[in-house]
Amino acid sequence: MTKQRPTSALFTNPLHVVNLGLSSFAETLQESHVPVIDVNWRPPAGGDPLLIQLIDNLKSEDGSAWNQQITAANETAIEHLLTAEPHIIGIGIARDVVPGMRDGMILHAGPPVTWDTMCGPMRGAVMGGLLYEHSASTPDAAAKLAASGDIAFEPCHHHQSVGPMAGVMTASMPVWILENVTAGNRSYCTLNEGLGKVLRYGAYGDDVIKRLEWMKTELAPILSQAIAKHGPIDMRSLLAQALQMGDEGHNRNRAGTSLLIRELAPFLVRLSEPSDAIGRVLEFLHSNDHFFLNLTMPAGKCALDAAANIPGSSLITAMARNGTEFGIRLSGTGDRWYTAPAPIVEGLYLPGYSSDDAAPDIGDSSITETAGYGGFAMAAAPAIVQFVGGTPQLALDTTQRMREITLAESRVYQIPAMGFRGTPTGIDVLKVAETGVVPAINTGIAHKEPGIGMVGAGLVSPPFSIFAEGARELAASLARSSEFGTSAKRLVD
Amino acid sequence: MTKQRPTSALFTNPLHVVNLGLSSFAETLQESHVPVIDVNWRPPAGGDPLLIQLIDNLKSEDGSAWNQQITAANETAIEHLLTAEPHIIGIGIARDVVPGMRDGMILHAGPPVTWDTMCGPMRGAVMGGLLYEHSASTPDAAAKLAASGDIAFEPCHHHQSVGPMAGVMTASMPVWILENVTAGNRSYCTLNEGLGKVLRYGAYGDDVIKRLEWMKTELAPILSQAIAKHGPIDMRSLLAQALQMGDEGHNRNRAGTSLLIRELAPFLVRLSEPSDAIGRVLEFLHSNDHFFLNLTMPAGKCALDAAANIPGSSLITAMARNGTEFGIRLSGTGDRWYTAPAPIVEGLYLPGYSSDDAAPDIGDSSITETAGYGGFAMAAAPAIVQFVGGTPQLALDTTQRMREITLAESRVYQIPAMGFRGTPTGIDVLKVAETGVVPAINTGIAHKEPGIGMVGAGLVSPPFSIFAEGARELAASLARSSEFGTSAKRLVD
Repeated sequence: MTKQRPTSALFTNPLHVVNLGLSSFAETLQESHVPVIDVNWRPPAGGDPLLIQLIDNLKSEDGSAWNQQITAANETAIEHLLTAEPHIIGIGIARDVVPGMRDGMILHAGPPVTWDTMCGPMRGAVMGGLLYEHSASTPDAAAKLAASGDIAFEPCHHHQSVGPMAGVMTASMPVWILENVTAGNRSYCTLNEGLGKVLRYGAYGDDVIKRLEWMKTELAPILSQAIAKHGPIDMRSLLAQALQMGDEGHNRNRAGTSLLIRELAPFLVRLSEPSDAIGRVLEFLHSNDHFFLNLTMPAGKCALDAAANIPGSSLITAMARNGTEFGIRLSGTGDRWYTAPAPIVEGLYLPGYSSDDAAPDIGDSSITETAGYGGFAMAAAPAIVQFVGGTPQLALDTTQRMREITLAESRVYQIPAMGFRGTPTGIDVLKVAETGVVPAINTGIAHKEPGIGMVGAGLVSPPFSIFAEGARELAASLARSSEFGTSAKRLVD
Repeated sequence: MTKQRPTSALFTNPLHVVNLGLSSFAETLQESHVPVIDVNWRPPAGGDPLLIQLIDNLKSEDGSAWNQQITAANETAIEHLLTAEPHIIGIGIARDVVPGMRDGMILHAGPPVTWDTMCGPMRGAVMGGLLYEHSASTPDAAAKLAASGDIAFEPCHHHQSVGPMAGVMTASMPVWILENVTAGNRSYCTLNEGLGKVLRYGAYGDDVIKRLEWMKTELAPILSQAIAKHGPIDMRSLLAQALQMGDEGHNRNRAGTSLLIRELAPFLVRLSEPSDAIGRVLEFLHSNDHFFLNLTMPAGKCALDAAANIPGSSLITAMARNGTEFGIRLSGTGDRWYTAPAPIVEGLYLPGYSSDDAAPDIGDSSITETAGYGGFAMAAAPAIVQFVGGTPQLALDTTQRMREITLAESRVYQIPAMGFRGTPTGIDVLKVAETGVVPAINTGIAHKEPGIGMVGAGLVSPPFSIFAEGARELAASLARSSEFGTSAKRLVD
């Protein structure tokens, strides 16, 4: 037996712990009922020494010219974003209206990805897309064709488009056409299919293809005629109202969908179409509270495209995921993607499913957060926590935290519960890099296997590394093109 | 010259004031930039010595039998209120469906009132009602007829009905029919005309009468057919959703109106009616965000009627104003009204108008607050402050304060921003009497002259005296009918 020693005070007195760093240390103690204050502390610049120097330099006298250039570029970029006025101007067939779209091409969500590296739900959606196009007659044949190299896979984002979840757009799909009437640029998005077993979540069964057929032959032509009679629809107005009615424009769109229905119903009813067909259209819209999502997304896309390609700007113009990688683009570095493996979403699962079933984060729908709503406007939509998890307080905190990494507040999208303050808008990659606060994104969760569909919804944090990389590359691009403080040049060389 | 004396410290040192009582003392000091803490203090029981003794007695051992009887009665009453399930079951013509309604009768808002004592907007609405019924051909002739004694004026509330603002219902007007499917009782309300120059605000011009004609000949028949095809519509479900979409069900009904439109549109479009007529109906609903108000009101009425006439219950079953008097009814004292002069509404005025133009508080719409929404659910509708004045914080505070005077929380009407807590429901006249906290009511403001219409919207506080009187009379009714502590009997004799 070892000799007995006096017990240390650490083991006899009650513990009172302040935890800095990994929350898991705090959680372990909390499970043992030890009182813990878990400080939400992150190392500056994610602890990246080069990035810390870069940011320090920007704040120094040496970096002032550089800083001024970024500030001026951001002022231009954010003004384009804030003054964009996206209007719904119609519905067309993708091959006829989407720039560069053609038969044999499939657009998908997120940064570029190949068939070999595609996640399950995106593969499922591609197979469904090929069945829908009659390019293959069985799922196996579709998978073979997809793998053959005969299909061109390109990101929606490379074609002025965005797509939720798998984001698959094929040549004969009907698409919304939006125009930013301030700058004249357009954007495109497919029509929303509803929740559950749907193509964008990777399902490709007969019911999925049949619904897509109906959307092409009845829903889209009828909606298209109603919009033609109505005239362009101001998405800013609808979205601003929806945010005052408990939507955030990403995972909660009940108000937006309702407002769209009441806007179009008087025109729908007067069309020279069979009343049963119009009735089916109205029933479909009524049954699908996410219908408005495929409008909030291209509204964000055409607003952000107007703010793209401004040399020196650290504004993030796209955040998008393909289920394999999470990617961002910066205004100051144009078309370049910064990517890292897509994370798993934390959220609420449908009965019978768990995080074991989840595909990694997927979809272009994070364009809504990039444009200043979605997760960034979560405080406007406390009821969303019933869908994505969390508490109403989390919703308020999330919006508040996003103010730390954004360049401005929206002048039209307001949050009543925050005294009508504008939503945090325009993510600054340098602020993300400096604070370590990453954008908050509300999102759906697809099953990891092709052919199944939606399994839940939740919140996701993008990988910090892509913001760090973006910040460094922005600095490098500036160093190559202008006069800098020498130390800045040294850092990025 | 008087001899100079040393100045008192009161006049030389900075003042730090705590104000109890009238806020006007604090305001005077605030205007002079003196720091003041204005305590929101009210004398218990409004300073009424008899009422103080009554409430003290209820809490004493002597009053325990009495207290138990009231508690038991209130448990029964609140259960009827909380479990009521109001459904829209159709639309009919008042003389055919409203109990006791007949030609030559005009129902109005609030407690009983005569032509001689009616306020301007109610007179205007009565004149418009007589023109609409072709009982008179000019406004002057209508006023003469109204004064002749040949028209029977009765409160809506005496006919299972409620009416917003002037609340005028005539025999040939179409009315919503609601049924509380739990208890089987029904309620009725006219259809909402929109805002501005409308009958319920006292306007009676040709445009007003023409709109009412159209509502009878086209709107009501078409809506009635759509509801027949749809089947009964569960108002609890619609209202619960609307409260999660920024409505409070009294002065903000944009979400409720939207939900009703999307519910009915698929049925409207399939009717064998001219598509232009259906288009006009949908346009009218789309243009009138208050359309849903005339459904939230009878929903409250049939829920509260199920809780009425329970001996000993201190639950308030009606709060209603006729522009001359504000009245309430208690479950325990049945049909009896407790009234006092109607106050002036504090609020926001339309351009060109001020409180000098305002009629006193008017309308049965305070049935919404009585049933546990409207002002009581203001926290669900922070955007309403743009319509009625105040700040989003006031909206939160108002709902929170109403918890002090209510018996329960709704099990279906929830406020997301308060962690999905139920709305404060079921006003207890004894709690109002004890605390001096009066119910908070959101309301519209009519011009004081007949024929003009709406001039604003705001918040109104009912007169305390009617709650004190109600509490005393409830006690008296109990004293007459049961065994009491002797001191309680002495108090009410």
